[in-house]
Amino acid sequence: MKRHVISILMENEPGVLSRVCGLFSGRGFNIETINAGPSNEEGVHHMNITTFGDDYIIEQIMKQLNKVVSVIKATDYEDSPAVEREMMFLKVQAEAPDRGEILRTVEVFRCKVVDVSPNEMIIEATGNHEKLEAILTLFQRFGIKELARTGPLAMLRSKKKVN
Amino acid sequence: MKRHVISILMENEPGVLSRVCGLFSGRGFNIETINAGPSNEEGVHHMNITTFGDDYIIEQIMKQLNKVVSVIKATDYEDSPAVEREMMFLKVQAEAPDRGEILRTVEVFRCKVVDVSPNEMIIEATGNHEKLEAILTLFQRFGIKELARTGPLAMLRSKKKVN
Repeated sequence: MKRHVISILMENEPGVLSRVCGLFSGRGFNIETINAGPSNEEGVHHMNITTFGDDYIIEQIMKQLNKVVSVIKATDYEDSPAVEREMMFLKVQAEAPDRGEILRTVEVFRCKVVDVSPNEMIIEATGNHEKLEAILTLFQRFGIKELARTGPLAMLRSKKKVN
Repeated sequence: MKRHVISILMENEPGVLSRVCGLFSGRGFNIETINAGPSNEEGVHHMNITTFGDDYIIEQIMKQLNKVVSVIKATDYEDSPAVEREMMFLKVQAEAPDRGEILRTVEVFRCKVVDVSPNEMIIEATGNHEKLEAILTLFQRFGIKELARTGPLAMLRSKKKVN
């Protein structure tokens, strides 16, 4: 069971999203994370899905995705040189005695504090999967009251050699 | 037609995502952006959807969302004090003469360069909707070759007064 990051370019029509998600759930696959939004082309959306699964079944899903009329292109970024980064919001318990330590941790990981109240903080963190997991572990001891993650954005790196 | 940011807590079971998306497309509503990922509770996912639509119809969708068995809670963040931020990747044309100006723009908006090649850069930007639109406009003159957005994460701000 490997983690797969799948990237999909599709026409933004009502029903496509539901159809794409259905291809995964129809095989009992859980979508771990999903994100979708406008691309640089009018009417075309960019989507990233992460899922855990058997290589053979993922291959089948990829084939079917590429057959959906509104899907322009679906790619599995496994073994591709892609940049992968995710954003998350953490609402952390932040009582006065802990606040100094929390702010130091925020600084080390280059996070941002986006909201403060007398006993809570909302922290924004970005990075790859491993970095976000490390941040989560570090903040757990203060108490995480809420957590929201966007799932990774993935984009192919550019060729380093000029042709 | 107002922009609505909807936040949903739901059990992560195959089919829920497809069902939730179907509630929107069934009414001819386009989902502008969507993101979903694990929350701080095992098996519970957090989802944010943005859509443009008539207040009355959104209200109906909210009622139906809250009736879906796997949906724990669905909230429309309109008029709520919520923090809202999004991440995007921009692949920008970056020939030698433009590179200085691109890097200055990156610095002003506190973006990050996450990949460089002889004639392209991938830039990561985070911020609210307005900030990202401003960044997009500024980079357009260099040429945007690819764009991916996570859609906004939204989280209710904490109460500023101690009860």
